[in-house]
Amino acid sequence: MAKPSIPQGTRDFSADVVRKRNYILSTIKTVFELYGFEPLETPAMENLETLMGKYGEEGDKLIFKILNNGISNPKNTDKAKVGFEKALLGKSSSELTERALKYDLTIPFARYVAMNQGRLTFPFRRYQVQPVWRADRPQKGRYREFTQCDADVVGSTSLVNEVELANIYHQVFIKLGLAGYQLKINSRKILTALAELCGGAAKMMDITIAIDKLDKIGLEKVKEELLLRELTGQQISIIEKYLSISGSNEEKLEQINLLLGHIKSGKEGINEVAFLLNETRNINVDIDFTLARGLNYYTGIIFEAKAPTEVQMGSIGGGGRYDDLTGLFDVPGIAGVGVSFGVDRIYDVLEDLKLFPEEVHSGTKAIFFNMGETESRFAFGIMQQLRENSISCEMYHEFAKINKQFSYAEKKKIRYAIIIGSKEIEQNYCLVKDLSTGLQEVIVFEKLYEHFSK
Amino acid sequence: MAKPSIPQGTRDFSADVVRKRNYILSTIKTVFELYGFEPLETPAMENLETLMGKYGEEGDKLIFKILNNGISNPKNTDKAKVGFEKALLGKSSSELTERALKYDLTIPFARYVAMNQGRLTFPFRRYQVQPVWRADRPQKGRYREFTQCDADVVGSTSLVNEVELANIYHQVFIKLGLAGYQLKINSRKILTALAELCGGAAKMMDITIAIDKLDKIGLEKVKEELLLRELTGQQISIIEKYLSISGSNEEKLEQINLLLGHIKSGKEGINEVAFLLNETRNINVDIDFTLARGLNYYTGIIFEAKAPTEVQMGSIGGGGRYDDLTGLFDVPGIAGVGVSFGVDRIYDVLEDLKLFPEEVHSGTKAIFFNMGETESRFAFGIMQQLRENSISCEMYHEFAKINKQFSYAEKKKIRYAIIIGSKEIEQNYCLVKDLSTGLQEVIVFEKLYEHFSK
Repeated sequence: MAKPSIPQGTRDFSADVVRKRNYILSTIKTVFELYGFEPLETPAMENLETLMGKYGEEGDKLIFKILNNGISNPKNTDKAKVGFEKALLGKSSSELTERALKYDLTIPFARYVAMNQGRLTFPFRRYQVQPVWRADRPQKGRYREFTQCDADVVGSTSLVNEVELANIYHQVFIKLGLAGYQLKINSRKILTALAELCGGAAKMMDITIAIDKLDKIGLEKVKEELLLRELTGQQISIIEKYLSISGSNEEKLEQINLLLGHIKSGKEGINEVAFLLNETRNINVDIDFTLARGLNYYTGIIFEAKAPTEVQMGSIGGGGRYDDLTGLFDVPGIAGVGVSFGVDRIYDVLEDLKLFPEEVHSGTKAIFFNMGETESRFAFGIMQQLRENSISCEMYHEFAKINKQFSYAEKKKIRYAIIIGSKEIEQNYCLVKDLSTGLQEVIVFEKLYEHFSK
Repeated sequence: MAKPSIPQGTRDFSADVVRKRNYILSTIKTVFELYGFEPLETPAMENLETLMGKYGEEGDKLIFKILNNGISNPKNTDKAKVGFEKALLGKSSSELTERALKYDLTIPFARYVAMNQGRLTFPFRRYQVQPVWRADRPQKGRYREFTQCDADVVGSTSLVNEVELANIYHQVFIKLGLAGYQLKINSRKILTALAELCGGAAKMMDITIAIDKLDKIGLEKVKEELLLRELTGQQISIIEKYLSISGSNEEKLEQINLLLGHIKSGKEGINEVAFLLNETRNINVDIDFTLARGLNYYTGIIFEAKAPTEVQMGSIGGGGRYDDLTGLFDVPGIAGVGVSFGVDRIYDVLEDLKLFPEEVHSGTKAIFFNMGETESRFAFGIMQQLRENSISCEMYHEFAKINKQFSYAEKKKIRYAIIIGSKEIEQNYCLVKDLSTGLQEVIVFEKLYEHFSK
């Protein structure tokens, strides 16, 4: 058979990577829990109709669909091929596929809330850390299977939730050593007001899509795009004015007030941004009116977290407020707000900045060398005592030359080698060699546990 | 649209269930790590050719296949249907599907070892805790998406590995409070010897499949099945003798020795079982010659862990030794041994026996009541101090009647309510009410953290 491989855009995670990923994920989960969020897990598969039509036409195309059972018979024989073609003949698409892999965590969450609304206590705070799948073209930093990490509060319109979510970003990034993170905020209400001023609500999409590209293509190209999208020169010059607002948060608020303060949704958005800024003075939150976040469902405050400027990474998290989570499932009126962390990007940032703590790399703490049948049987008993005391260790699997055993320990980055030969058994001690320093100590069996608990 | 639902055989896990599952999984992972096993994660998707043909004809049918991208267009319009049929026309099966969801953790592990053999240090000890998918007919206790939990050592033929794995079962079950577990062992070599005695190696499959059913259908039906599988009356009477071996481990060893000790593989198997028993005297390991474990790839010691007899559950884990993990991927000669835990069944056992520890249920520890704008702003600062000190808490999201806030706290099973009104702010203390006892205490702000760290 062909050399084994894995599907494009997917990854195997070896021990070191799993440990580093878990370090990030457990840091985030711990903070979510501190803020009263509770875990939820939904299946990898959803009914196709739950997902279709929720992510726009482009999104729909990227959903991985699962073949209904009993259809495919990929054996490469003529008989099988005939059977396969017969099986397909006259099948409607729903007979071919009725299930799909989840594309994000938001729609499954909405589906869960809609299904269980009678049983849930609102405001409902849930966090969810699970893989999602997208049939995107794989490229550097973009995978077909990746982990999303979301926290949402639904059933509350209070801005205190936004304050809490901003603090969650802060606390997570501080714990990860990313004190230089930036948290940008804006309000979709301000963007709505801008659209009202420039061609009306119908232009909201055109404007946000163009603004969203500012980072990538620059102001001139954004203006060109707006022209193509049939905005007038006058409208474009207002948008240019909007995009060029700068200064401190206070200065920005003043300028936006002059531009959009006279429009109802503008005033609301400005007040909300001002409130959030005021309640988060202890952490660094910055207004960024160029922040648009393409997703249609946001309606209030929007967030974007960026990596410290010393790494070229950009967004490492985002989120915002939405008016109606479950309307698509015929349960209207459940408003909420949520944030999300970009785990893969945070991983790359910590790697770049060498911020993974030393402990994260440690697996097995000690290896007992195998010095023969009797000796290893004796050592096994000692090893079990260490394990009972939560010290992870292993024994070399067979009697072998000592160099071979040292080499195994080194390759596996095990720090301590414990040697118990017949002489040691007789005299009730063992040799403990620290492979990182080369130092060797004699330790009596009774003190071995203490030695490793230091 | 239709009422939202999830695919048959899949589950949403709410907070309480996630916590209880995590309790089991982290207990198992901790023990795996203590024994020097390192984590591995492989993608949900594998290339179809990696999986097909590895699980027998029945298994192949149960693999969930993923539709290649760009084929399905399940929109319910005539135009879409025509497009869909066109897209299917003349497609070969590999144009329809090239990827599938993993069916177990063993084949992906074998694929990983084959792909990375040059980089791995052998013996390679890995554990893997991930979901797998099977298109089985769902029924009580059988799901289409479920978590497998495996540990394997590959690249070693030493029986010390079997001793360690038996100890892993022991330590996990003790930690979970299941001291009454039973660990049954047998050897496939003994079954091979039995087959040699009864119709030759060609009958091995027939015999193991029949023996595997003993628990479910009883001896008489097993004998009928063996007749159907064309074993002679004499051969069946040997098998009956084999199955009726009973007594203590020592007595069983004596009897098996009389029956199969003269056959080479029988002798080997018996010696291995005797060795394992001898090295695991501290934990309860029992010989069970009726244990067969249907899977073909086992070649040496086989394990089955059973729940304590006070619950009707049967197997909660199993495993065994295999000669050749990666031969299917053209990398021969990698022998290994592994065990697996049945997480869903262990969950049910712990639920039945009420063995989940109290702490597992706790989410948020305290809720700050919202007593108005100024008060809640003040309380927010106090709350952040508790969170800084790892105490999980939340604040009611808006100013509301106190009864409403109490009712929210009770529904969410939050134990402590903290009340900070204007009077309390003035006098520098808060009221802390223990909702489980109804007791109310007055605590000065400075002592609040201490109060909850007790």
